[in-house]
Amino acid sequence: MQREDNDHLVISSDPNHPANLIPELCRKFYQLGWVTGTGGGTSIKQDNLIYIAPSGVQKELIKSENIFVLSFPTPKYPPSDRKYIRKPMGLKPSACTPLFLAAFERGAGCSIHTHSQWAVLVTLLVEKVHGKGACFEISNVEQIKGIPRGRTKTGMLGFHDTLRIPIIENTPFEEDLTGSLEKAMEEYPDTYAVLVRRHGIYVWGDNPAKAKTQCESLDYLFQLAVEMHKLGLPWI
Amino acid sequence: MQREDNDHLVISSDPNHPANLIPELCRKFYQLGWVTGTGGGTSIKQDNLIYIAPSGVQKELIKSENIFVLSFPTPKYPPSDRKYIRKPMGLKPSACTPLFLAAFERGAGCSIHTHSQWAVLVTLLVEKVHGKGACFEISNVEQIKGIPRGRTKTGMLGFHDTLRIPIIENTPFEEDLTGSLEKAMEEYPDTYAVLVRRHGIYVWGDNPAKAKTQCESLDYLFQLAVEMHKLGLPWI
Amino acid sequence: MQREDNDHLVISSDPNHPANLIPELCRKFYQLGWVTGTGGGTSIKQDNLIYIAPSGVQKELIKSENIFVLSFPTPKYPPSDRKYIRKPMGLKPSACTPLFLAAFERGAGCSIHTHSQWAVLVTLLVEKVHGKGACFEISNVEQIKGIPRGRTKTGMLGFHDTLRIPIIENTPFEEDLTGSLEKAMEEYPDTYAVLVRRHGIYVWGDNPAKAKTQCESLDYLFQLAVEMHKLGLPWI
Amino acid sequence: MQREDNDHLVISSDPNHPANLIPELCRKFYQLGWVTGTGGGTSIKQDNLIYIAPSGVQKELIKSENIFVLSFPTPKYPPSDRKYIRKPMGLKPSACTPLFLAAFERGAGCSIHTHSQWAVLVTLLVEKVHGKGACFEISNVEQIKGIPRGRTKTGMLGFHDTLRIPIIENTPFEEDLTGSLEKAMEEYPDTYAVLVRRHGIYVWGDNPAKAKTQCESLDYLFQLAVEMHKLGLPWI
Repeated sequence: MQREDNDHLVISSDPNHPANLIPELCRKFYQLGWVTGTGGGTSIKQDNLIYIAPSGVQKELIKSENIFVLSFPTPKYPPSDRKYIRKPMGLKPSACTPLFLAAFERGAGCSIHTHSQWAVLVTLLVEKVHGKGACFEISNVEQIKGIPRGRTKTGMLGFHDTLRIPIIENTPFEEDLTGSLEKAMEEYPDTYAVLVRRHGIYVWGDNPAKAKTQCESLDYLFQLAVEMHKLGLPWI
Repeated sequence: MQREDNDHLVISSDPNHPANLIPELCRKFYQLGWVTGTGGGTSIKQDNLIYIAPSGVQKELIKSENIFVLSFPTPKYPPSDRKYIRKPMGLKPSACTPLFLAAFERGAGCSIHTHSQWAVLVTLLVEKVHGKGACFEISNVEQIKGIPRGRTKTGMLGFHDTLRIPIIENTPFEEDLTGSLEKAMEEYPDTYAVLVRRHGIYVWGDNPAKAKTQCESLDYLFQLAVEMHKLGLPWI
Repeated sequence: MQREDNDHLVISSDPNHPANLIPELCRKFYQLGWVTGTGGGTSIKQDNLIYIAPSGVQKELIKSENIFVLSFPTPKYPPSDRKYIRKPMGLKPSACTPLFLAAFERGAGCSIHTHSQWAVLVTLLVEKVHGKGACFEISNVEQIKGIPRGRTKTGMLGFHDTLRIPIIENTPFEEDLTGSLEKAMEEYPDTYAVLVRRHGIYVWGDNPAKAKTQCESLDYLFQLAVEMHKLGLPWI
Repeated sequence: MQREDNDHLVISSDPNHPANLIPELCRKFYQLGWVTGTGGGTSIKQDNLIYIAPSGVQKELIKSENIFVLSFPTPKYPPSDRKYIRKPMGLKPSACTPLFLAAFERGAGCSIHTHSQWAVLVTLLVEKVHGKGACFEISNVEQIKGIPRGRTKTGMLGFHDTLRIPIIENTPFEEDLTGSLEKAMEEYPDTYAVLVRRHGIYVWGDNPAKAKTQCESLDYLFQLAVEMHKLGLPWI
C-alpha cells in the first residue's frame, strides 16, 4: 500500500535527485531572502515527472517527503493528461504550478519563483519611468554574460548586448498570471525570466544549475540597477 | 527533588517542543539581526503552559534549560492564577512577558518581539509624515498575502488590500507598553502585529510557524517600504 | 620543555575558556563584517591573565594555540611588571594591545576592537556636522537600553537618556591612540566605548558576554543612525 | 592509467593544499556575494604548478577533483612551455586564466577575481566624476593599512597614504583584458589589484591568505566609498 503513495519517487540517496535538490535550493533561496515568509517556490522536471515544492510552508524547512510529483507525459499532451501521482497529505502544491508548467512546456528543466526585493524594486522603478508594458533593460555590465542569448540561439549574452526582461502586471490570484506570463514568453521568445510588477520574478533554465545561476545573475543585476539608480547612474 | 524544578517540562527530543523551538527560533532571529545585543524575545503557548525566553541574554546562545514556564489555565482566569512553574536559576523572564500574555489572551499560540531596524525606521518615517498615533499602511505588494485577514476572518489579505499595522508610542519600561498594546489590539481587532515607535514590533500568530512567517512577511514589507521611500515611491 | 611554552594556558575543553572563546568571538565578528581583512581584535582578562588574539591574521581562522597570554598582576602594578608568558611562534600580539590594557586597567573583563563600517560612517557624519572633539549622541531609541549607565553607576541607560560615545582622532600607528583613548576614558568616565575617527571602535565590558552584546547594541545604533541620516531623521 | 589523469595532484588531506583551498575560498566568496552566478574565480601557484578553478560552474559547489593544474616552469619560460597537466573532463579552465598568469609572472602566489558590486559601483562613480582611464583613490581610512605598500617596497600602506587602484575598460571577451591589465600593472608597479570598469576586480597577493585579506580590505574600502558618496563625503 505504501507504494500507492509513490513515496519511492521522492526517496533517493543522490543529492541531485529533484526531491533532494528542491529542499536544498529552497534553503539557499531562504538565506538569500528570496522566499521569505513562505513566498516563492521551485520546481524541477526530470524525464516525464515534475517535482514541486509545497505551498504556504517555511521554505527553509522543506523535506523530500513534502514534494509533490506530477506526471507530464509530453508538452504536447493536453493539460488534462497531467495528474498528481504523489500528493503529500495536508499540503497543497505551490500556487505557482501553472506558471512553472508554462516554462516546462517550453523546454525548461527547472523553474524558480522568488519575491526578491531587488526584483520588486526594479519593477517599481520601471513603472515610474516607462508606464505599463515596459521591460527592464540593462547593458554594459559583465554579469549580463551569465544569461543565455535565448532558447532559439546558442551561447550567452555579450557585454555590449542589452538584457531585456519583460514585466507583467500582478493579479490577485497567482494562477491568473499564467495568461500574461505565456503572452510575455511569446513576445520575448528568448527570455529565460519574466518579472511580475510588485511581486517578484519567474526564472527558468535548461536544468537546476542553469536556472539557479541565471536567477543569481539576474538578482545581481537588479540589485546593481537599484544602487545605480540611487547614485544617478543610467542603466543603458 | 529534581522534579520540583520541573526540568522535565523543558526536556524533549522533539525539535518542535517549545523548549527546543524557542532556542532555534532565537538563533534564526539573531542571524536576521532582529534580536541583536540581547534585545527581543519569543514565547510559545502550548496547552495550558507558556514557554518564555529569558531576559538580557545572548539570544543565539539560549538553551532549553534556560526556558521559563508559566501556567496559564485559561485566558479567562484572573492574572493572579498565573504563576511560574519553572524558573531557571539566575535568570529573569523576558521583560516582554506581559505583552506576550496580551496576545495569548486573544488566542495566539506564539508571540515574537524584534528590534528590527526596518520596523523602527518605518515608525520614524510614519511619524515624520503623519505625526504620532498613525499606523503603517501599504498596498499592492504580493507579500501582503503572507498576512492573515484577521482573527475574526478567514484567509489571507489580498494583493489589493491595504495592510495596516498600528503604531504605539514607546515607554521607558517595557511592561508599561501593555496598556497601549491592548488598546491597539482592540482598535485593530484583526491585526496580528503592533509596531512600537523607536523600538520594534510585536508579532503573534496561531502557532510558531505562522508567527514566524508573518513576522518575516512584515519585515520584508518594512524593508521594501524604507527602500521605496528612499527611491521616492509611495506606499499606497 | 613543552611546559615552558605554557601551552597548557590555552588548552581547555571548556567552550567559555578565553582561549576557546576568543576564536569563537572572532568567527562571529568576521560574519558581522567587523574584522574584515585581518582588522580588529579581541582580548579577555581572566584572573590575572590577559588572553590576546594575534595581529595580522585571518580572524575567522584563529585557533586556541594562536592566543597570546600576558600576565597582569593587578591594575596598579607598573606596566613593566607585565610580560608575555605565552608567545605563539611566528605571530605578533594584536597592535591594539595597549588599548585593550587601558580598558583592563579600568576594570574591564573583555575588550573588542572592530572596523565596523557603521562606526566609521558615524564618525564621518559627526565630523561633518560638529568638527573635531565631538561625540556621537543619540536618544529615544529602545536599543540604548542595551548599554550600561556607566562604571560608577548601576543599571542600564533608559529610553529617554542620551547615549554619548566620545570620538578620538586616528593616528598612523595604532599604539599611539592609547593616550587619547585614556583621555577620552577620563573625560567620559561612564563610557564603555570610544569611537576612532575613520577607523572603528573600541568597546569593553565587565565580561565577554557584556562586551559582545554592548558592541552589538552600539553597532545597531550606528547603523540605524546612518540610515536615519539618509532619511533626514535627526538623532536627538 | 589513473596516474595519467594526474588525479594525485589534487588529492591531499592538507586543508591548505591548493586543491582543497580553492573550493574553500570559492565557498567563502560565494557567501560574500563576490562570485554570484558562476562569475569570478580563484587560482593558486605553488612551486611550479598553478591550480585553477573551472569556468561557468557554481562556485560554492567546486570540488578538489574539478581543479585544473597548469605547469609553470618559471615566469621567464615562454608561454608555449606552459601546459595543462590535469584537465577535469567536461570542464573548461576559468576564462580569467590569462589574467591570473599575468599576476603569477610578477611573483604572485594567489590571484582572485570577483564581480563584487561595490567594486563595480566604484568604477561607475569614478567614471561619472573623472571620466574613463582614471583610478580609484582613497585616503585617511584605517583599513588602507590592510594593503601592502607594493611589490618593490616593504610594509603596508599608512593611514595618511593614498591608496590608488587603476581602472581598466572592460572588453567583450575576458581574455582580451590581458593586455590592458598588464599595462596597468606596469604603470602601477606597486598595485596588488586592478579594477575592471562595469565588471569587477582582479586582486593578487604573495600567498592565498594575503590575496584573500587584501581582497577583503579593498572590498571594505569600496563599500565604504559608495556609502560615503551617498552621504556626500569625499574620498580624499
